[in-house]
Amino acid sequence: MKIKTIDWCNNKIKLIDQTKLPAKLEYIQIKDLTSLWQAIKSMKVRGAPALGAAAALGVYLGVRDSKAKSFVGFLKELDRVSRYLGSSRPTARNLFWGLERMCNVALKNKNKPVSVIKNMILKEAKRIIEEDRSSCRKIGQFGAKLIKKNDKILTICNAGALATIDYGTALGVIYRAKQQKKNIKVFSCETRPMLQGARLTTWELKKHNVDVTLICDNMAATLMAKGEIDKIIAGADRIAANGDTANKVGTYNLAVLAKFHKIPFYIAAPLSTFDFKIKSGKNIPIEQRPAEEVKSLFFKKPIAGMNIKVFNPAFDVTPNNLISAIITDRGIIKKPYNKNIKRIAK
Amino acid sequence: MKIKTIDWCNNKIKLIDQTKLPAKLEYIQIKDLTSLWQAIKSMKVRGAPALGAAAALGVYLGVRDSKAKSFVGFLKELDRVSRYLGSSRPTARNLFWGLERMCNVALKNKNKPVSVIKNMILKEAKRIIEEDRSSCRKIGQFGAKLIKKNDKILTICNAGALATIDYGTALGVIYRAKQQKKNIKVFSCETRPMLQGARLTTWELKKHNVDVTLICDNMAATLMAKGEIDKIIAGADRIAANGDTANKVGTYNLAVLAKFHKIPFYIAAPLSTFDFKIKSGKNIPIEQRPAEEVKSLFFKKPIAGMNIKVFNPAFDVTPNNLISAIITDRGIIKKPYNKNIKRIAK
Repeated sequence: MKIKTIDWCNNKIKLIDQTKLPAKLEYIQIKDLTSLWQAIKSMKVRGAPALGAAAALGVYLGVRDSKAKSFVGFLKELDRVSRYLGSSRPTARNLFWGLERMCNVALKNKNKPVSVIKNMILKEAKRIIEEDRSSCRKIGQFGAKLIKKNDKILTICNAGALATIDYGTALGVIYRAKQQKKNIKVFSCETRPMLQGARLTTWELKKHNVDVTLICDNMAATLMAKGEIDKIIAGADRIAANGDTANKVGTYNLAVLAKFHKIPFYIAAPLSTFDFKIKSGKNIPIEQRPAEEVKSLFFKKPIAGMNIKVFNPAFDVTPNNLISAIITDRGIIKKPYNKNIKRIAK
Repeated sequence: MKIKTIDWCNNKIKLIDQTKLPAKLEYIQIKDLTSLWQAIKSMKVRGAPALGAAAALGVYLGVRDSKAKSFVGFLKELDRVSRYLGSSRPTARNLFWGLERMCNVALKNKNKPVSVIKNMILKEAKRIIEEDRSSCRKIGQFGAKLIKKNDKILTICNAGALATIDYGTALGVIYRAKQQKKNIKVFSCETRPMLQGARLTTWELKKHNVDVTLICDNMAATLMAKGEIDKIIAGADRIAANGDTANKVGTYNLAVLAKFHKIPFYIAAPLSTFDFKIKSGKNIPIEQRPAEEVKSLFFKKPIAGMNIKVFNPAFDVTPNNLISAIITDRGIIKKPYNKNIKRIAK
């Protein structure tokens, strides 16, 4: 089963509309900046690494028709496009990392004609796609070493093919362990409010013949108390220099439960998710999403009065002391995180 | 705002169809045993104390047309009715407590004519309704002593008027504290899969002008980490002799989080929720509910493939060491629970 979450096709971004899953596997074509911004905001495309690739391709969409003749004029446009895309979702580091890479390509080649720079930007964006494919496989390979035969693994949200280009970070580890015939069993937290675990992770794991059981987020503790969970693996949206990790809301909950039940808790993410300039999780911006996501299940039938107040953070921060190890494309990072993250960043 | 969740009216059980809330406040009339069984199973009526009253009235529905002439014949029918009602939902102690009370009325009056016993059963069922009203108010009064001015209180599921006759256990404490002008703020966990927190608790608290904010279950940890929760109060479905407490799934999760964040965690329940014959939580039967509750939000649009496995326990067990105190209608019970529960039972 081949999933290619995001691609560059016929001069357009081609991506899976993830809000339609699991009912329908539908691809959409995006040829302008505003549509991409909306697709990101409404989570048609989501997942930190996928957002990195989407943002990079988006920069090309935004500047390809630029009429700027001088580099200074072009850079101004590039900057505008980059800020606009950056305003779609604040938490995932990869989105900004993708934008920065595109800017750096331009800056490094400022003496070249604008038309050449445009092509180099597209090439760099395509390179991100290829790098992501390979980096997920490395994460899978490193991470699978931590998985034992018959392990029962809990995950949250979707850190799989649908969150990357085609393999996944946390689920990449699971795919690799499965390939190694480790006979694993996966529990997927449904992940309220947007249900990425229920809608995306179970769909994707089933397609790959992984044994998966869906639970509501509030059932994880009861499984742990029963001894039904051997390991927890989650993805990441942004990792601070000290290892504090922002990920889908509910991740911190699982990390606390893991500590209480003495279960290893792993984060899986590529180097592009690390924000080396941010000292700790306290400085990670956390996106607040609309109340309607919680109050109306999938914007259909209301489940609470429209006058009811809602707290709806999209992410939470797990402090480094609750994380057993961070599985990256450069190897497994353990404590002390400050020192070891610095080393791997080089 | 008067809510009477369950009542005896015109020789029928009158109850709020809680599956219709918050969209519609609709009362239904129940005049036969099978309809009551189905109303309980499908959670049109739910909440341990409400189930106690429903079961008691149900016994009368089931035996009132009995043609038995002898007590032995009548008792056989009573036993059949009682077993049938008891098969609807296995966890809530109050349901069985209600059934046992009806049987005891019959046994104590076995020398009276069957027609007289029938009337005594109805009278006893009505007494349960009155007792519940008063017992909730006592719980509120005892519990409110634990609440400080400006406390921010987290609750799960619905342990309010809708779970009892008209006041509530955990929410009874909140109503009383509000009445004492303690300026409290409540956070309500939505409580997947059936969303009693989103649908019922926010509706009920709003009607009583309590400041309430809805969160998804997986957001509780992040609120606690921010220092936004001073206390947690939950209801109970069954409390073992050692204080281990079965309540809506997700309660144990909150208790673990409370311990980690050093937040007091309280259970509020009447004496009728205690199962003195059960030594510990290990012996409490936990109901497993249909997978469709999780996979189809309110049996509408599917959120996961119909071939996906689901784990859907309706309750979990919180061990006594995670419970700061149990607020009952006889006063507040603290550790050591074994000793102090025994004392209060007398």
